[in-house]
Amino acid sequence: MNIATDEIRKALGDIVLTDEKALQHYATDKWFASARPQAVALPTSPEEVARVLQFAAQYDIPVTARGAGVGYVGGCVPMGGGIVVSTEKMNHILEISPEDGIAVVEPGVLTADLQEACARLGWFYPPDPASRKESSIGGNIATNAGGPRCLKYGVTRSYVLGLQVALADGRLLSCGGRTHKNKQGFDLVGLFCGSEGMLGIITRATLRIIPAPQARAALHASFPRFADAAGAVQQVLQAGHLPCALEIADSFTLTAARSHLGSSVLPADAQGHLILEIDGRQDAVDNELHELVELITSLGATQVVPASSPEDVELIWQLRRGFSESLKATGLTKLNEDIVIPRSRLVDFVEYCSSLREETDIPIACFGHAGDGNIHTNIMVPRDEDGHERLNEANLLLHRLFAWVLSHGGAITGEHGIGIAKAPWFPSAIGSVAMDIHTALKHALDPAGILNPGKMGM
Amino acid sequence: MNIATDEIRKALGDIVLTDEKALQHYATDKWFASARPQAVALPTSPEEVARVLQFAAQYDIPVTARGAGVGYVGGCVPMGGGIVVSTEKMNHILEISPEDGIAVVEPGVLTADLQEACARLGWFYPPDPASRKESSIGGNIATNAGGPRCLKYGVTRSYVLGLQVALADGRLLSCGGRTHKNKQGFDLVGLFCGSEGMLGIITRATLRIIPAPQARAALHASFPRFADAAGAVQQVLQAGHLPCALEIADSFTLTAARSHLGSSVLPADAQGHLILEIDGRQDAVDNELHELVELITSLGATQVVPASSPEDVELIWQLRRGFSESLKATGLTKLNEDIVIPRSRLVDFVEYCSSLREETDIPIACFGHAGDGNIHTNIMVPRDEDGHERLNEANLLLHRLFAWVLSHGGAITGEHGIGIAKAPWFPSAIGSVAMDIHTALKHALDPAGILNPGKMGM
Repeated sequence: MNIATDEIRKALGDIVLTDEKALQHYATDKWFASARPQAVALPTSPEEVARVLQFAAQYDIPVTARGAGVGYVGGCVPMGGGIVVSTEKMNHILEISPEDGIAVVEPGVLTADLQEACARLGWFYPPDPASRKESSIGGNIATNAGGPRCLKYGVTRSYVLGLQVALADGRLLSCGGRTHKNKQGFDLVGLFCGSEGMLGIITRATLRIIPAPQARAALHASFPRFADAAGAVQQVLQAGHLPCALEIADSFTLTAARSHLGSSVLPADAQGHLILEIDGRQDAVDNELHELVELITSLGATQVVPASSPEDVELIWQLRRGFSESLKATGLTKLNEDIVIPRSRLVDFVEYCSSLREETDIPIACFGHAGDGNIHTNIMVPRDEDGHERLNEANLLLHRLFAWVLSHGGAITGEHGIGIAKAPWFPSAIGSVAMDIHTALKHALDPAGILNPGKMGM
Repeated sequence: MNIATDEIRKALGDIVLTDEKALQHYATDKWFASARPQAVALPTSPEEVARVLQFAAQYDIPVTARGAGVGYVGGCVPMGGGIVVSTEKMNHILEISPEDGIAVVEPGVLTADLQEACARLGWFYPPDPASRKESSIGGNIATNAGGPRCLKYGVTRSYVLGLQVALADGRLLSCGGRTHKNKQGFDLVGLFCGSEGMLGIITRATLRIIPAPQARAALHASFPRFADAAGAVQQVLQAGHLPCALEIADSFTLTAARSHLGSSVLPADAQGHLILEIDGRQDAVDNELHELVELITSLGATQVVPASSPEDVELIWQLRRGFSESLKATGLTKLNEDIVIPRSRLVDFVEYCSSLREETDIPIACFGHAGDGNIHTNIMVPRDEDGHERLNEANLLLHRLFAWVLSHGGAITGEHGIGIAKAPWFPSAIGSVAMDIHTALKHALDPAGILNPGKMGM
């Protein structure tokens, strides 16, 4: 892969950037790692992506796909150098067809833009990663992105009906299509969902859309203990409700929120907190909200705030976003891990985090998608007496945290992926047989290993 | 793979059957093909399945997995001879945990048995293939089975969180697990869903369950023209309803039903028919049913029959099952194809079927899951003057039908899979690049090709 940058420019023409500013910009995502590529390609069509890959295959040049560059695990950081292929210019919604219940998009379309375009037609694209205003559909698919509404609606995979993918050898593969069911052979669509740019580059996607729910309502509730909030999660589901979102926050998060957002935002004694959202037909939502307020109150909530207008629902989600901002505002470095545990382990997990905190004096803040056990676990790294961040200790803490999660049937990532950040734990998380299968699949689809090298420990 | 049957018996012990009756029984499924295995293994544990595969790998013996043997495409017919591994004795529900929102089952559990066990706890396993009382979870997963309720709830894949799989070399792979999200590497769970026994044998599954909807209601409606019924499908969705099922039937099917079930069951002039089911909170369902009756009536239905009690809803599903029986009762041989088309093509498709019927004098009956475009298309094979079934002509008709479907963005199978029955059309359905990827994946996971040889044209 020793090829002069001039040769790359000559071969690929004006879709290539090689200036210093570009190379720096495309060296990172939202995680800490940084690696400069040799060149950046900004293709505008599937055929141009394929041409980059044909060229790269010929000269054995690493190629790292990049969506909007807002990942949390270094997934699009070009560890092997070579060419970054950013799909940012392939950002057109090609079609929205309510009659077929599909949308066809280029990979660079921002998730929120698609959602808004669907909403204008009375339709709904449910996957809603917190990053939806800045992350792209291609990136969502490559990481099989989740979000709060997965509890009812499922992850990105559930909405991908068809893909066009540029393969490592530069061929374009089409799999799946416009139909809502397809049992033609193996699930190639699923294989590329969540493949983190290591098996191919997504160049087009056909997505399933559904009729937009008529109405939406929410509530937020404060509890004297975290265990009460976690217990309420179980009781809500056991009573036959399937909210679209069911979000929990722990006492550290709530304290940070009162400090950052103002003490009036939450009761002073709240040590656990729930946000719950439902959607459906208008009258159904009105009645169910009423039932839920009664149920949550009966479960010991000290404050229950229902919201039935779109504006009030939005205020509750602002509070949820405020939790994350409040943790940042503590001045501590926030290592955001998207741990998943079996739902019944919520209380055990938060208690284990508390015990780690007491032992190490490094706080851990937990909040997130309680309904599916996907808890954003934030190690809040303080500084030592000399003003240095206690990163080594935080890393040791992370080791212990992940070990607990894995030994209790959990997963070290539910939404963000493996990338570089989780690679050290990846083999022990999936086991040696699954690791062998990963290697075999990678070799089957990318025998020369040019696609996103250095990720998942491969 | 020349090994004496005695050697197989000696190596695998009393889990093996080799008597003539067994070899005949395990030679077929619900399709027409038949091929006798050399031996049948009835393992009772994952380790026993693994032991069969270790032995088979050593002697290069073909191994064909079998669930309940009720597939429609010859998927479990042992074309290569060798050993059939039936999971029928691995039929235990190991755990149902509402707290974690999961069920852990052996592959031989019948789908309806799992659904009933969940229902007793107030929980719900949504995938509902028509065969649910006789098909097994392992077979459902191997074919990624669908059913009427996929419109709202999605296919089997959406409910599989974790799998244990015996691989071609006899190792046991665990992938996914008890968590509702898991982004640890590639989607191995998805890869095995729908792999039709060609990549491994499912030995255990962890499934997602959800709170049972409180209530269920349905309606059935007759229309003067098929196009009116198809138009109503679009209008129901466009009005923001997402029924769990939305089933259509064409005029041939309705005529057969009146003849078999009695003329009073449907209006004499009905040329199109819809069944619609909704579920949710009790009051929500009551109100939505009322809205839907009004909407459907306004769309030109000549008869709308609502059902809000469980008994009345069941009567409507009996009518739906009666459609299938009525077609069988015509005395014609029914070739059941599970075609999928983009939803907007419903009318075009049925008109094309009518034109083929006029041209060839071979009837085609269409009914099925209109909401997701998955139309069970039954070629009703008549006999010629000499009393022979006109199978050659029917086959030519099928060629033309599939060609139309593929050229209109459809798929030749939405639920049943490829197996042997659809293998002739498989390469043209998915294209040469996708075929290459299938071959590469098969080679990566089963290099000696011992798993279910002769399927999908591989």
